[in-house]
Amino acid sequence: MKVEIIAVGTEILLGNIVNTNAAFLAEECASIGLSCYYQSVVGDNEQRLSETLKNAMGRAEVILLSGGLGPTKDDLTKETVAKVCDRKLVMDDHTRERIEAYFDKKGKKKPTDNNWKQAMVPEDAMVLDNENGTAPGIILETGENTIVLLPGPPGELKPMFLAQVKPYLQQKSDTVIVSQTVKICGIGESQAETMIADLIEDQTNPTLAPYAKTGEVHLRVTASAEDEKKAQKLIKPMVKQLKERFGQNVYSTDADTTLEKAVVDLLVANDLTISTAESCTGGLLAGRLINVPGVSEVFKRGVITYSNKAKRKMIGVKKVTLDRFGAVSEQVAGEMAKGTAALTKADVTVAITGLAGPDGGTQEKPVGLVYIGCYVKGNLTVKEYHLSGDRSKIRENTVAQALVLLRECVLEYISEVTFGKKK
Amino acid sequence: MKVEIIAVGTEILLGNIVNTNAAFLAEECASIGLSCYYQSVVGDNEQRLSETLKNAMGRAEVILLSGGLGPTKDDLTKETVAKVCDRKLVMDDHTRERIEAYFDKKGKKKPTDNNWKQAMVPEDAMVLDNENGTAPGIILETGENTIVLLPGPPGELKPMFLAQVKPYLQQKSDTVIVSQTVKICGIGESQAETMIADLIEDQTNPTLAPYAKTGEVHLRVTASAEDEKKAQKLIKPMVKQLKERFGQNVYSTDADTTLEKAVVDLLVANDLTISTAESCTGGLLAGRLINVPGVSEVFKRGVITYSNKAKRKMIGVKKVTLDRFGAVSEQVAGEMAKGTAALTKADVTVAITGLAGPDGGTQEKPVGLVYIGCYVKGNLTVKEYHLSGDRSKIRENTVAQALVLLRECVLEYISEVTFGKKK
Repeated sequence: MKVEIIAVGTEILLGNIVNTNAAFLAEECASIGLSCYYQSVVGDNEQRLSETLKNAMGRAEVILLSGGLGPTKDDLTKETVAKVCDRKLVMDDHTRERIEAYFDKKGKKKPTDNNWKQAMVPEDAMVLDNENGTAPGIILETGENTIVLLPGPPGELKPMFLAQVKPYLQQKSDTVIVSQTVKICGIGESQAETMIADLIEDQTNPTLAPYAKTGEVHLRVTASAEDEKKAQKLIKPMVKQLKERFGQNVYSTDADTTLEKAVVDLLVANDLTISTAESCTGGLLAGRLINVPGVSEVFKRGVITYSNKAKRKMIGVKKVTLDRFGAVSEQVAGEMAKGTAALTKADVTVAITGLAGPDGGTQEKPVGLVYIGCYVKGNLTVKEYHLSGDRSKIRENTVAQALVLLRECVLEYISEVTFGKKK
Repeated sequence: MKVEIIAVGTEILLGNIVNTNAAFLAEECASIGLSCYYQSVVGDNEQRLSETLKNAMGRAEVILLSGGLGPTKDDLTKETVAKVCDRKLVMDDHTRERIEAYFDKKGKKKPTDNNWKQAMVPEDAMVLDNENGTAPGIILETGENTIVLLPGPPGELKPMFLAQVKPYLQQKSDTVIVSQTVKICGIGESQAETMIADLIEDQTNPTLAPYAKTGEVHLRVTASAEDEKKAQKLIKPMVKQLKERFGQNVYSTDADTTLEKAVVDLLVANDLTISTAESCTGGLLAGRLINVPGVSEVFKRGVITYSNKAKRKMIGVKKVTLDRFGAVSEQVAGEMAKGTAALTKADVTVAITGLAGPDGGTQEKPVGLVYIGCYVKGNLTVKEYHLSGDRSKIRENTVAQALVLLRECVLEYISEVTFGKKK
């Protein structure tokens, strides 16, 4: 079954907002086996939207439209779809009540006449409740096409699609598509691809596709079958094989688990507290860890020691070390990690020092040179990295590498404790 | 003059990457007065790309294509464009040399036969050097259309467009479009819109358009004229008027100045050092400040005190204050700011404590409640905020509000010192 995605909105055409809805919808459609060959963006203009819609209806069975469902005159997606499909717009009482209740709950002023425009829906259409706004979603079956209208704000579109549209589309399809992602870290994209080249080539059901993320690679296994149980059964051996091949580098097979969540879960499960010391990343590593709900159980303290003086005064890096090796050095990263452990009494500390640029690089120490130190109950590991990109990219990549190193060192500690090499 | 943007790439159709190139190109085209009515995405497929291209060529004078210029067989944008425009592909010696030099510089292995494919260009086309990769850009004039091919990676596309394509398109246009953005903070979007409603309505040249960003509003003034000087002359009085209306809330009229850069510049110019203390934002405020090159002159230290214990031990928040008012309170924010000043001897400190959720909210203290304290040489200001969104959104918004408050408090201090109210 083919799908086409049309985003409606002048603000996208003007480049004021990035069309993240299209990426979300495309990824979700791919995950249930719909093929998407075209995406388009048009403004809030009846003639152009109508032309784009007709074109799409001739090419794909399912059309997903986002945006243009607001209360103002400019918003005309619903009206245009109704005209193209030759349907009248009728008042939907249920939606009218929902909008009334929505305004009551928010304690906002009474709905205006404009808002009732949002309760008008094409005849014989399915109405989708919007839990996060006033515009309802709509599914219209024309016989040849399934046309889905979704509100533009991602906070309204995403939950509506996941809860109401995705299951509907899944049901229409005679096959069920199930996918699972094996998330790995600590291995580069090209190495990962080489390690699974045979699996990618040989397999058609399930299929295997690698996706590179900053510091991570996601391997998506997708199978289609008559029912979910059969699809799951097809996926299972491939996931097992990937786990065997990548071993400890697999940090999760759960869609919702981020790398930072995996790291925090590992610390919590092993009752290990953590502190961070950051120079060039200036708090971004701690920021990512603290985005995990429940991190408070293990996160002790973070320090941002951007200057040499801060490195000395806060976490006891020695002046002689700074003078002799420079702030961006293996030795300073090590002293930062140890000093942070001494200061905060955390079981695990991570320290980052590096050159994020754009200035300050030399031939010997170029921009992108980063040292990350990790200290786990008396064991220090310091690694050197050469990262590329602009200042933001280098910092983002550094944070990802720090999470990877942190995970590696903690796992090593656990395995040593478990297998009795060390106490 | 009309422009249409076509992104080529299966990875966009699958939703694996967000089409940020389209937003960038759309915004740049709008800034030079090109009208964009359609954007599309197609995969690396000759028949579909060819269909989309022909369609676009009938609707717009300028076609911008991004992606599909790589060295592999899958990449066929150039080949398809050449076929549609009936041009032969010929070897471009200059590009061949450039690719050779690129490989030499990177110290990479010799270019493969695939790479020479990248040196093939349509006959009589303009070749655009790529400073950041091997694929050249191409401008093809067909008489009716100007077709521009750009490499897909944003790090290659953006600099190439700005340096080589934008001036070319500007020159083709018989009018010059100049725009300037007045960036304001500390005023909400709707209030800002109300304050300029008359200017938006009355003006056609220059035009005025507001764009909401997190914690900021950007007011873009755009004028068209025969030459740049005349356009600048049209813009000037409007910019002046906006500066008068928004006064101190204007933090910059420079395209490259971010809010954090404006804040850092203000601190540097007034020789004020800064330290930060963060709870729920966990380092993101420091992270944003430290993204400004040159911040090292003023940034002293940052602490991340997520737990109550860290707040007490690191920056001396009193146990009785935490017990009596709770960690998320005006009092704790104030003690955090003062304690950080005492610890780090910074002239200015900012402290953040808040509930980012998803758990931990109560009726009295709901998720989204945030206190930000700012301490400037003995003067403490603490403000209460009620922010909405998920955990990430609340944290992002908190950081923006902290930058706004920080700027306000520093400006107030400077004005007091300057006008002699305080010493």
